Amino acid sequence: MEGQLQTRNVPNLTEIELAAIESGNNLADGHARYELTASQQKIINQLGEMYALAAEASPALLDQKAQSAFLTAVGQHSAMAGAEVLSCYSSSVAMEITARSLYTSGVRRVALIHPTFDNIPDILRGAGMDLTPMSEDSVMAGSGRLPAGAEVLFITTPNNPTGQVLLPEALTHWARECASKDAVLVLDSSFRGFDERAQYDHYAILVQEGCRYIIMEDTGKLWPTLDLKIGFLAFPRDERLPLHRIYTDILLGVSPLLMLLVQRFAEDAQDGGFSELHRFIRSNRALLRKRLSGIPATSFPDADSRISVERLALPAGFTGSDMRHALCERGVHVLPCRQFYWAEPEAGERYIRLALSRPPEMIRTAAAAICACIERG
Amino acid sequence: MEGQLQTRNVPNLTEIELAAIESGNNLADGHARYELTASQQKIINQLGEMYALAAEASPALLDQKAQSAFLTAVGQHSAMAGAEVLSCYSSSVAMEITARSLYTSGVRRVALIHPTFDNIPDILRGAGMDLTPMSEDSVMAGSGRLPAGAEVLFITTPNNPTGQVLLPEALTHWARECASKDAVLVLDSSFRGFDERAQYDHYAILVQEGCRYIIMEDTGKLWPTLDLKIGFLAFPRDERLPLHRIYTDILLGVSPLLMLLVQRFAEDAQDGGFSELHRFIRSNRALLRKRLSGIPATSFPDADSRISVERLALPAGFTGSDMRHALCERGVHVLPCRQFYWAEPEAGERYIRLALSRPPEMIRTAAAAICACIERG
Repeated sequence: MEGQLQTRNVPNLTEIELAAIESGNNLADGHARYELTASQQKIINQLGEMYALAAEASPALLDQKAQSAFLTAVGQHSAMAGAEVLSCYSSSVAMEITARSLYTSGVRRVALIHPTFDNIPDILRGAGMDLTPMSEDSVMAGSGRLPAGAEVLFITTPNNPTGQVLLPEALTHWARECASKDAVLVLDSSFRGFDERAQYDHYAILVQEGCRYIIMEDTGKLWPTLDLKIGFLAFPRDERLPLHRIYTDILLGVSPLLMLLVQRFAEDAQDGGFSELHRFIRSNRALLRKRLSGIPATSFPDADSRISVERLALPAGFTGSDMRHALCERGVHVLPCRQFYWAEPEAGERYIRLALSRPPEMIRTAAAAICACIERG
Repeated sequence: MEGQLQTRNVPNLTEIELAAIESGNNLADGHARYELTASQQKIINQLGEMYALAAEASPALLDQKAQSAFLTAVGQHSAMAGAEVLSCYSSSVAMEITARSLYTSGVRRVALIHPTFDNIPDILRGAGMDLTPMSEDSVMAGSGRLPAGAEVLFITTPNNPTGQVLLPEALTHWARECASKDAVLVLDSSFRGFDERAQYDHYAILVQEGCRYIIMEDTGKLWPTLDLKIGFLAFPRDERLPLHRIYTDILLGVSPLLMLLVQRFAEDAQDGGFSELHRFIRSNRALLRKRLSGIPATSFPDADSRISVERLALPAGFTGSDMRHALCERGVHVLPCRQFYWAEPEAGERYIRLALSRPPEMIRTAAAAICACIERG
């Protein structure tokens, strides 16, 4: 099995997540699976009335309000003024539309951050792109050049699984570099709701540097809304890629009820909900780190991460793939990190990834299972 | 403008639908836009409780119940036993996954029914397929051979916009023809809920003939649920196309709330809801035909259609594209049929398409506007 790990027999991360979804101790996928806060519960209690409201309202107005509320809540104040924003079923659908638009326009060469969640390279390759890895450290450092011939630079920020954030100076550098080469800077910002350091106004910098850009924004990772969500696809109004056209190949729009739901949750987030969410994740992260602090030779490489997943580096002699199976036998589901390292899988074997957007009991159970697995060797 | 109609400046049908969506007299898109029935309203009134139920239940079980309820309601009794069924955000997402799976496996040559809704050829071509048109009449007649080299036969049944249905004998013929050439038979059955003649057990025939198949089922056109919907992607468990893998590139699953909603609406449909829906569409169709019966040289070419859209053939001297613009000026939005005729656009210029899933007042307004436009010449 392990010998075949580079072939199509290796499960992708979503396949592993699917297998875990029915488990009581599912720390595999990054979706939000915990209790609604009191104010979120209040919104959900009004779902019936919201349906009636959404049925009466103008879809375009609802759409614009959802986009504006969300983008404002995550600090993207220049987005609505300068960008065309398309509401998609999810950020992965936004990614698929992006990949297809690149292909249709003859673009093939994409420089992509390494590591990152495997559906990004899979979607890009599936649409015919040639990928060149760029190490996360060099991307985040914000120095250096685009690889020769790259027509697109694709950065996940905050990155998954590491939580590393592209800071304003680094964004400015890459925007300038892309502008000078007429390359498109693509940002997947699905996790930015978790980290205020990723909430400076990206659109303002991109416009100022005259850079072609595509940004994927996502409500899907933040709130325990049973996967009722919207992925936003944002780009300059004068962008020549056929993003709008390919969007209409796939959808006419998302449900007006989802637009209203996203608006309400975004308003709640701005009104204290994000602070509550950040406290919740911080507390789960501290809990996990504390429970594992006694285990020698394990460590948390992403000291500074604030997103809703956490990497754990395993002691020498353990691999993430084996550890995943061992934990599975104890009814605890996590992700191995091999698949995140899409250009160099072995480099990911030192790590597993755990979801923190879970009830604290589940974090405790997972920590205990990890301790038991490592102590048993 | 008209001179450029074969270029990318021609709007696709969804772009025209988008422009109409804000209009009071939008008969452009095929989405269900009318009042909920009493029993449907009852379901929507329980949305809050359903959310709580969906949050507690097993997603896999909910998914299976939604699929089973829907497939049973549309007569596909063998589907759950024999097929793998994947729940997608929409039937277009199911189509995109299909197209990407074909491409990944090296398939390129697709025989596609002509005419049909333009996002089907657009998605297939966008994913790199070479298309050969097969006339609807020859497809529905169920005789003849696959075009030389075709690796896939793609049929929309009931077809959009004509409402023509692939009957059991014709399905058997094409299943046998595809099986003999190891070709994949792809069916888009999004409109079958409207027409009992399309509700015989397709899966039983396909299995009996030993045919590779992919079927797209859709809840999205049937019910006025504010575009809360699921598209199902069904195929034999031993199909070798990487459909499951590419599905997981794009999604982990649909919302459990949508699964429960689809289950409830499907149960309601089986319990009299479909009969009510069919009466409603039949009555709107009769109304439209009656209101336009006085206009010489117009006709309804799809005498037998039962789906929720209707084609109108215009008098000589009128084109669908011009008529669309003229109606637009009167605040009435319809689709020109040129774009459905993806291999021979001029052949579609005789027709416009009107949505019947609307309140009767809107049908009356549209009929009056059409009369006025034609009488004015």
